Amino acid sequence: MSIHPELIHPDRAAIRAAAARIAPHIRRTPLLRVAGDELGLPCDLTLKLELLQASGSFKPRGAFNRMLSQPLPAAGVIAASGGNHGAAVAHAARRLGVPAEIFVPEITGAAKRARIEGYGARLVVGGAAYDAARQASEARAAQTGALMIHAYDQAEVLAGQGTVALEWQEDAPELTHVLVATGGGGLIGGMAAWYAGSGVAVVSVEPEGCPTLATALREGRPVPAPVGGVAADSLGARQVGALMFAVAQEHVSAAVLVPDDAIRAAQRLLWDASRIVAEPGGATALAALLCGAWTPPPGARVGVLVCGGNCDPGSVA
Amino acid sequence: MSIHPELIHPDRAAIRAAAARIAPHIRRTPLLRVAGDELGLPCDLTLKLELLQASGSFKPRGAFNRMLSQPLPAAGVIAASGGNHGAAVAHAARRLGVPAEIFVPEITGAAKRARIEGYGARLVVGGAAYDAARQASEARAAQTGALMIHAYDQAEVLAGQGTVALEWQEDAPELTHVLVATGGGGLIGGMAAWYAGSGVAVVSVEPEGCPTLATALREGRPVPAPVGGVAADSLGARQVGALMFAVAQEHVSAAVLVPDDAIRAAQRLLWDASRIVAEPGGATALAALLCGAWTPPPGARVGVLVCGGNCDPGSVA
Repeated sequence: MSIHPELIHPDRAAIRAAAARIAPHIRRTPLLRVAGDELGLPCDLTLKLELLQASGSFKPRGAFNRMLSQPLPAAGVIAASGGNHGAAVAHAARRLGVPAEIFVPEITGAAKRARIEGYGARLVVGGAAYDAARQASEARAAQTGALMIHAYDQAEVLAGQGTVALEWQEDAPELTHVLVATGGGGLIGGMAAWYAGSGVAVVSVEPEGCPTLATALREGRPVPAPVGGVAADSLGARQVGALMFAVAQEHVSAAVLVPDDAIRAAQRLLWDASRIVAEPGGATALAALLCGAWTPPPGARVGVLVCGGNCDPGSVA
Repeated sequence: MSIHPELIHPDRAAIRAAAARIAPHIRRTPLLRVAGDELGLPCDLTLKLELLQASGSFKPRGAFNRMLSQPLPAAGVIAASGGNHGAAVAHAARRLGVPAEIFVPEITGAAKRARIEGYGARLVVGGAAYDAARQASEARAAQTGALMIHAYDQAEVLAGQGTVALEWQEDAPELTHVLVATGGGGLIGGMAAWYAGSGVAVVSVEPEGCPTLATALREGRPVPAPVGGVAADSLGARQVGALMFAVAQEHVSAAVLVPDDAIRAAQRLLWDASRIVAEPGGATALAALLCGAWTPPPGARVGVLVCGGNCDPGSVA
C-alpha cells in the first residue's frame, strides 16, 4: 500500500529547509511579553507579532517557499484569497519578478484589494466567498499555465508557514501552549508539524462563524462548514485542507470556537494595552482567552500568535 | 569648585541600576529588522518598537525609575505632560498604589486625555502648551506636597529613559547610528549617556515646528524655541532640560530638523510597510531618512526608535 505523497505532511527537516530558502525575503517577527495583569488575564502572554511580517500577515512564508521550490512559468503565478494570501503572493511575485493574478471574493474589503493592486498584481473579483474565488482561479490557471499558489493546501505552503513555529520555539523555548487562529489550516498545520512531539500544545481557535477545523475533527474528515462573521475575510475557508487535517488529527491539542464579540474585544485590547492593530483574524487567538473558550492549565506558559493586521487601522479602537 | 549634583548626568551604572529597578514594571520592547528596499530607503533599518511599551510610549521607564527611587508621599505624584508622560505617570501610580494628578495643555488630544483618565488619574487642563501646564503643576505641587515627576529634566527620569539604549545595544550590538526624536530631551539625553564613548552615534531628530535641541545647541544653552506642528503634543517642550543639554553637547552627534509632511509620510510608511501605528512624534526619527535631513554614511547600520503610538489609529492611513 502506498501513501499519496501529497498527504505526507512536512516534518522538521522540510520546515528548516523552508526557513533557509525564504530567509532573504521574510522578516523574523518579534515577540512581545506582556504581564497578565496588564491584560486582565490570569497568565502572562508571549505574543508573536506576525502582523509585522511583510504584506501584513504570515502568508509570505508559504508563498515564497512554494515559489522558490520550483521553476516559475512565464505566465507567473495565480492565487485565490480572502486577501492576505493574495497580498503575499503579489508581494512575492513582484520581488521575484514574475506576474501575478489574484482572485478574491466579494467580501474582501477595500484595504485588502488596494494592497494587492499596490503590489502590482492583477485583481479579479470572483464569487461571493473564498471557495468560489478558488474555483475561478483554478479555471483560469488551466488556461494560462500560471503556477497555482494555494492558500493553504500545498506541502510547500505548510512548510513555509511552519517556520513561524521554528522561530517561536527558538525565541521562546519556555512556552507550553501556543494559540493559533485557523482558517484553511495551512498556518496551524505547518506549526503543529513543527511542534509535533515537542511537548508544546498547539491550540486552534476559530470564529463560531467559520468553524472549519472544529467541524472536520468532529466529522473525522474535512467537510464544508459555514463561512460568516467578522473574520470571514481571513479565516473563511470553506473547509480545511487535506494536508493540514492529517497533521491536526494527531498534533492539534484542542480546537475551540469564539464568538465575534470576543474577537472585537481582543482587537480593542491589543490596541489599548499594546498599540497593536490586529485584523479580526489576527485577534482571534487572543479572543479564546478573553471569553474563556480556552483556559490555561496551572503553570502554563502561553503564546498567542497575532497573525495579521490587514484592516482599516481605525477599526480597532 | 563644586559641581551642582543635579547637573551630573546619569552614567552607565545609573542606567543599569534603573533597568534593574523598573524591570518588574516595564516591557522589554522588541526590534523589527526591515530591508531597505521594502521601505524605499538606501539602508536596512532596525526599528525599536518602543510604542509597544505599557502606556504606548517610552515614558514609564523614567516615571517608574523616579517613583521607585524614593518614598512616595501620601499626596502621591503630580506631573505636567503633553500626554504621553502623563499617561505613563498615571499608569505607574496606579500600579504602585498612589494617587496621581496630571496637568495637560489644551493641545493635548482626546485620545491622550482619555488614556490618562482611564488609568484613574485626576486630569487638569492647564494652559495653551506644555510649558503653561508645567507651571500650573508646580504651583499645585507646592500646595499638596505631591512628588513632582518631571517629564524630562530629572536625573532619575533620564536614567530610566536611558534603559532604552541599554536594551537596544544588547539586542542589536551591530548598530553604528541610532535616530531618536527629541522633545524636552529626557529620552535622547538618557540614551546618549548610555551610548557615550561606545562609538555609536546618537542622532537627534526634531520637527521644524519644535526645534528645541537644534536651537539650544546653536545658542550654546537651553533657550525657548517655538512650539508647533503635527508633533507638538509629544515633542512640544518649550526648551530642552539642563541635564540633557550637558549630555547632548558632548554625546549627540547631530541634531536635524524635519518638516511636518515628512513626519506624516513616515507615519504612512510605518503603516503601509509594517502595520505599525506611530503617533507623529513616534514617526519623527524615521522622517529624517525619508526627507534626507539625515543621510546614512556608507556602511552605516542604522537603528530608528519608534517611541510612541498614542494617537487615533485611523489617523495614520
